[in-house]
Amino acid sequence: MKVKNYRDVETVSEAPGASMRWVIDDKDGAPNFALRVVELEPGAASPFHNHDWEHEVLVLSGTGAVRDKDEGLTPIGEGDAVLLLPDEKHQFLNQGKDTLRFVCVIPNLE
Amino acid sequence: MKVKNYRDVETVSEAPGASMRWVIDDKDGAPNFALRVVELEPGAASPFHNHDWEHEVLVLSGTGAVRDKDEGLTPIGEGDAVLLLPDEKHQFLNQGKDTLRFVCVIPNLE
Repeated sequence: MKVKNYRDVETVSEAPGASMRWVIDDKDGAPNFALRVVELEPGAASPFHNHDWEHEVLVLSGTGAVRDKDEGLTPIGEGDAVLLLPDEKHQFLNQGKDTLRFVCVIPNLE
Repeated sequence: MKVKNYRDVETVSEAPGASMRWVIDDKDGAPNFALRVVELEPGAASPFHNHDWEHEVLVLSGTGAVRDKDEGLTPIGEGDAVLLLPDEKHQFLNQGKDTLRFVCVIPNLE
């Protein structure tokens, strides 16, 4: 068993105003999937991209939107869950005034 | 893509004062793992049990503890992540005055 606060995990940044913490992953011994916490500052967005693994997301705080493969925007806020299937193009956008913070689980990548 | 608020998902109860929502799972088309939200009322606890799959947990709100295989109790609260490996005996306890609410991800079960 491991217990740690996500805030104690080092952040990595992949885009301006976007940061991610790999809170639980294979380096902890997790056998199948990784739990990350992502933060987007107001106005920031993740890349509009796709990849061959899924996302399972739960929004912790803030407001924003998720852009789907057809470029449609769906509003998201606290308590909203998002399933993105492998190869689905997507983007997360912070359209609010506070940090948009969400859990994002992915399978362990080879 | 699917978006839904976890509060709109039906709850199932496995123990007194304990409820679970299967927010994203194989019925949604999730290929590898299920994201659940668990709520324990004050004084409630999950069973002290083990199984051959892991848990990856993030506490959303409330305070409590997790009992490990050696019966030791580790306090948990908002922002704490817990990794329980397959076959590790464990129990979640709400020792606070508010609902203990956490995300709990498990692999899809056959």
